[in-house]
Amino acid sequence: MDAMNPMNKKVRVGVVGASGYSGEELVRLLLRHPGVDLTSITSRQYAGQTLAQIYPRFASYPLAGALRFSEPNVSSLAQQAEVVFLALPHGVAAEFAEPLLRLGRRIIDLSADFRLRKAEVYREFYGHDHPCPRLLAEAVYGLPEVYREAIRTANLVAAAGCYPTSILLPLIPLLRAGLIDPHGLIADSLSGVSGAGRKAEPDYLFVECNESLRAYGLPKHRHLSEIEQELSAAAGRDVVLQFTPHLVPVNRGILTTLYASPREPVGDAGARESFQQNVQACYRSAYLAEPFVRVLEGKSLPDTKNIVGTNVIEFAWRLDPRTNRLVVISAIDNLTKGASGQGVQCLNLMCGFPEETGLPI
Amino acid sequence: MDAMNPMNKKVRVGVVGASGYSGEELVRLLLRHPGVDLTSITSRQYAGQTLAQIYPRFASYPLAGALRFSEPNVSSLAQQAEVVFLALPHGVAAEFAEPLLRLGRRIIDLSADFRLRKAEVYREFYGHDHPCPRLLAEAVYGLPEVYREAIRTANLVAAAGCYPTSILLPLIPLLRAGLIDPHGLIADSLSGVSGAGRKAEPDYLFVECNESLRAYGLPKHRHLSEIEQELSAAAGRDVVLQFTPHLVPVNRGILTTLYASPREPVGDAGARESFQQNVQACYRSAYLAEPFVRVLEGKSLPDTKNIVGTNVIEFAWRLDPRTNRLVVISAIDNLTKGASGQGVQCLNLMCGFPEETGLPI
Amino acid sequence: MDAMNPMNKKVRVGVVGASGYSGEELVRLLLRHPGVDLTSITSRQYAGQTLAQIYPRFASYPLAGALRFSEPNVSSLAQQAEVVFLALPHGVAAEFAEPLLRLGRRIIDLSADFRLRKAEVYREFYGHDHPCPRLLAEAVYGLPEVYREAIRTANLVAAAGCYPTSILLPLIPLLRAGLIDPHGLIADSLSGVSGAGRKAEPDYLFVECNESLRAYGLPKHRHLSEIEQELSAAAGRDVVLQFTPHLVPVNRGILTTLYASPREPVGDAGARESFQQNVQACYRSAYLAEPFVRVLEGKSLPDTKNIVGTNVIEFAWRLDPRTNRLVVISAIDNLTKGASGQGVQCLNLMCGFPEETGLPI
Amino acid sequence: MDAMNPMNKKVRVGVVGASGYSGEELVRLLLRHPGVDLTSITSRQYAGQTLAQIYPRFASYPLAGALRFSEPNVSSLAQQAEVVFLALPHGVAAEFAEPLLRLGRRIIDLSADFRLRKAEVYREFYGHDHPCPRLLAEAVYGLPEVYREAIRTANLVAAAGCYPTSILLPLIPLLRAGLIDPHGLIADSLSGVSGAGRKAEPDYLFVECNESLRAYGLPKHRHLSEIEQELSAAAGRDVVLQFTPHLVPVNRGILTTLYASPREPVGDAGARESFQQNVQACYRSAYLAEPFVRVLEGKSLPDTKNIVGTNVIEFAWRLDPRTNRLVVISAIDNLTKGASGQGVQCLNLMCGFPEETGLPI
Repeated sequence: MDAMNPMNKKVRVGVVGASGYSGEELVRLLLRHPGVDLTSITSRQYAGQTLAQIYPRFASYPLAGALRFSEPNVSSLAQQAEVVFLALPHGVAAEFAEPLLRLGRRIIDLSADFRLRKAEVYREFYGHDHPCPRLLAEAVYGLPEVYREAIRTANLVAAAGCYPTSILLPLIPLLRAGLIDPHGLIADSLSGVSGAGRKAEPDYLFVECNESLRAYGLPKHRHLSEIEQELSAAAGRDVVLQFTPHLVPVNRGILTTLYASPREPVGDAGARESFQQNVQACYRSAYLAEPFVRVLEGKSLPDTKNIVGTNVIEFAWRLDPRTNRLVVISAIDNLTKGASGQGVQCLNLMCGFPEETGLPI
Repeated sequence: MDAMNPMNKKVRVGVVGASGYSGEELVRLLLRHPGVDLTSITSRQYAGQTLAQIYPRFASYPLAGALRFSEPNVSSLAQQAEVVFLALPHGVAAEFAEPLLRLGRRIIDLSADFRLRKAEVYREFYGHDHPCPRLLAEAVYGLPEVYREAIRTANLVAAAGCYPTSILLPLIPLLRAGLIDPHGLIADSLSGVSGAGRKAEPDYLFVECNESLRAYGLPKHRHLSEIEQELSAAAGRDVVLQFTPHLVPVNRGILTTLYASPREPVGDAGARESFQQNVQACYRSAYLAEPFVRVLEGKSLPDTKNIVGTNVIEFAWRLDPRTNRLVVISAIDNLTKGASGQGVQCLNLMCGFPEETGLPI
Repeated sequence: MDAMNPMNKKVRVGVVGASGYSGEELVRLLLRHPGVDLTSITSRQYAGQTLAQIYPRFASYPLAGALRFSEPNVSSLAQQAEVVFLALPHGVAAEFAEPLLRLGRRIIDLSADFRLRKAEVYREFYGHDHPCPRLLAEAVYGLPEVYREAIRTANLVAAAGCYPTSILLPLIPLLRAGLIDPHGLIADSLSGVSGAGRKAEPDYLFVECNESLRAYGLPKHRHLSEIEQELSAAAGRDVVLQFTPHLVPVNRGILTTLYASPREPVGDAGARESFQQNVQACYRSAYLAEPFVRVLEGKSLPDTKNIVGTNVIEFAWRLDPRTNRLVVISAIDNLTKGASGQGVQCLNLMCGFPEETGLPI
Repeated sequence: MDAMNPMNKKVRVGVVGASGYSGEELVRLLLRHPGVDLTSITSRQYAGQTLAQIYPRFASYPLAGALRFSEPNVSSLAQQAEVVFLALPHGVAAEFAEPLLRLGRRIIDLSADFRLRKAEVYREFYGHDHPCPRLLAEAVYGLPEVYREAIRTANLVAAAGCYPTSILLPLIPLLRAGLIDPHGLIADSLSGVSGAGRKAEPDYLFVECNESLRAYGLPKHRHLSEIEQELSAAAGRDVVLQFTPHLVPVNRGILTTLYASPREPVGDAGARESFQQNVQACYRSAYLAEPFVRVLEGKSLPDTKNIVGTNVIEFAWRLDPRTNRLVVISAIDNLTKGASGQGVQCLNLMCGFPEETGLPI
């Protein structure tokens, strides 16, 4: 595949595990993508049925009546697709990634399996040995705003997760610029229920989630491992994050509120003013040219309804003059910029398409 | 009124401003209260109409067909009621409180007008002079778990607000016991939309709130003034709080996540264990006998659906061994324990009723 | 048990199958019921755990920490309870009802198992033989507004279902009075998701129900059997109903829109006026004294939010002068008047308590 | 403008009244439309502000930062746009339509002002004289599946309304084919809250709509006038419809359940079978080639979540063998196929673009 693909040749793409919410969102994006030929979708549960039968919402696409779910099979996938998305539960991706890579296919994995660089961190957070530690060195963390060049030529991309994206994009430029203290960072996140996946468990029934607000997974959520890995890389030293995820009754969307202290004292008005100019300059330099990052200026604050269904992250920040603390609030769609849209953005880079191709803003 | 009211004589009660959500919730509680004779409800907007006409949900109470909203009038209120609730927007309560107190009536104010002890703090946060600063000294802060004895004999009670209740009840015992550092406290709160009142503004339309997550009022929310006043009183020194309120799509309920640092280092396992025992002992001592405070032990975390419609606050806490920070999460119903139920709890104390009377748990 | 119970002696009550939404609502009502001593709750799934552990929302009731779920067992139930509620899935109630009745206990069954009078209708709608057809003759249909006297002395009451209640109470008086044509009746119903029970199936996940409107179960819903049985009894002839249930994203509540034709022509204004007077008189005569029936007059239309959490049915009617059709719209809480509240109303009748005891209005 | 526009020349389009929900949805569609150059948006309320300021969700479109709302002005509109959309409240469109038409501009009106053919019907349903009856004869009813050819060359198109679309598309082919009785038709509709517009009225506040189900506007909703006009045209005789709209807590979506009787008796299995074949053939003939109509076959039933955000109508039908009545259930997005998407579909016809251009399926 040519990194300079002029899109006059479509890329053949397969999706393994297309039955969860991320898989469904991925199919939605790929059906509309002008450079993609979706040739294969697999699902043990739905094998033999058409896309239209399982997802009536896609039924008006001609392909949806023709394309059938198949049992996942490495050799047919390798035949049918140049790039394969893995939208599988954590822990299962390796069994497809390894043989497909060996056969020369490129992989975009939406699970957490290849996001960590160190197998021992994986074991600490996931409670078992990594199934294929050899590949961790080869995998590129799929956060295009940070690893764009490496993604272009990668064969194995591990698309960044939803909470991580909402936390990393606002914090990384500030840590790199040394503007905030890497100590004492706090992330307080709200997530829509699709973040839990299409799992038929009582906790995620309508009646249990509607009119309910609750925290969960305290205090050591698995996503912390990849978040801290990337924050540490940006800070040049070990970062430990306080992270509290909450479940709130919306379908899609993550809103994260971040608390950080300026590294230099901002005890007087002049120092505060100067700090604010530095933050503004830092964000403009990092993100002004980014198609999917929207740093709000003026009085606006993020609202998930402004980004749901798009691949955009929007965020705003305030220096609180009463506490001298920096508060940053970010919003993403957990299924798009937090999963499948991110994956398609990586696909665009890997295939030489314009980065915005097929991605709603 | 006898502090030993054996409830064989009902207390005549009036409600000024019964047309907002707090007023409606108050009417709901008073209609079911065995010690209360609801004699007067006022509303400029609804004057002349019956309770049943305005609130069809109360129509099966015989009183609802008979009781009519009247224009608010101090002398008729004084004639009809021994205790008067004020459920008015901020800034209006004083014009009723002052003359009614002079006529010997007792007042329970649900607004923020009499919650602050210092008129200059009021001016700082509300942007204008307090209309009746003389009464600030007389008013008692209506948080029964903290000011129970003073409330019994008070003539003017300023019921604690919704965010403040969710923050103060978890933090005050820890600050009093010197277990946490009064510096660096953070409160990250989620509120249902009824917290905004029955205001016909575009921001609170169904379509604007549903499938929306957003922060607001950054960084200096008005409630900070009363929260910091009470935290400072508990800590014995000035406390400045970082506070971020969010609007989320539920009707009722507040979920607050609090972040605090232990005052003594908890760098090793032994110190952590000892700190946790102290926190548990502190909460048991403060709240084991409280009818409306539920400190969750074991693995449970608060969920607003467990307390909506009740006067209960429930909370849980965790010491995070990775950050050595204490995280406390609390849940209340903003209209009940956060407003009208709190007011009725104060009423019970003032009238010598058992404190739980008429209050759902 | 004395039909003139002065409530100075509590009735010992057991609940079999307290783990679904109806069971939970039943426990809520029984915990607050002044004449009930809840002595036994059973659940295979939760056996050994306390009520407070499974339902944290009840944790502030002293009983909730003490009462434990047990495995369902006929002889212990018979020892511990005088009246036993069965809150089980359809088809299972008989195995408890039969032996408990033999041991002299009284039964209130919330399932559909004993609502039909004819075993062959049961077989037609439920697809298998009735497990205990002998008891069908003995069972009383638990709709107090229709079968009050029979319920008082019954030993086996089959509480009317949710859709049936919303349809029967508005139509029965009109059919009895011969005001509407028993032909061509239509019921179009909307139900909140708790109506599906606490079933961990993908269809009832938050993400599948939120922002979704859908019909289901067309065209022959099981509830039709009991609805048509009771409509036919009221009309004195066989009635066939067109019934379309819909699932809509609220937790609780049923809204039913009924379409019926006047039996006598109403082609001119005079006939319409006279028909309307007859309907009004018919409803007043049937329901003016009923504590839980609210027939709206004037311009008001039902809204489920006015009755959720209560045992009230409210409804309004209009004669459409353009079509000469009568439209009646009713609202109930499917878990209260549509299930557990109805059961408690039956309990009150069976035990000689005032009928409103312990039931919210 | 050439009816054979090869889309190598963009059409300049203006939107008058872009501040409501339909206006916002229209802007969303036009921003993504490859054949449109959005040159002008007007709003009295927002004049002077950019599109990005008022609708942050569009902020990542370069145009959104540049395009400003202006005061509505006929001559600037005529200068800037070849086609003008009117997204105004009912009763206001005429004052723009008349002069713009005179200046040779083409109009797509989303209001009800030009949907009726007879000024006297307008007066009956809207309570005042039509402001510009002369134009009624010129206007084409904007339902492309029915009036495609007339729309291509029309200068004034009155896009069909939301409830009407959900009712007309399923019923018109059956009436034209004489398969159903034009007497006794019933439409029972559920609408999301955006159908009420962005009106800051208490009835549409989040707290009033969430957890609420209610009917409204009984028995003579204004939309009946256009629905009955078009049903009558299809049936070749006067049709009177029973119509009950309900408000339910979703943002977008209409679900309509239609009840109709077969014109010929279907009393035996053979007649029913034959009727069903006729209905299937009728719908296939009418809609198999339509890009935005999806007639579900097999067991599927419509669900609004399958069509929200798209320009698709999906519907399913059942002949109930117990009542011999035909039940048809349809789903559309009230803002897309029910308003703005329909308008863009008309635009595509008027400008010679492929009909699907810029419209999500």
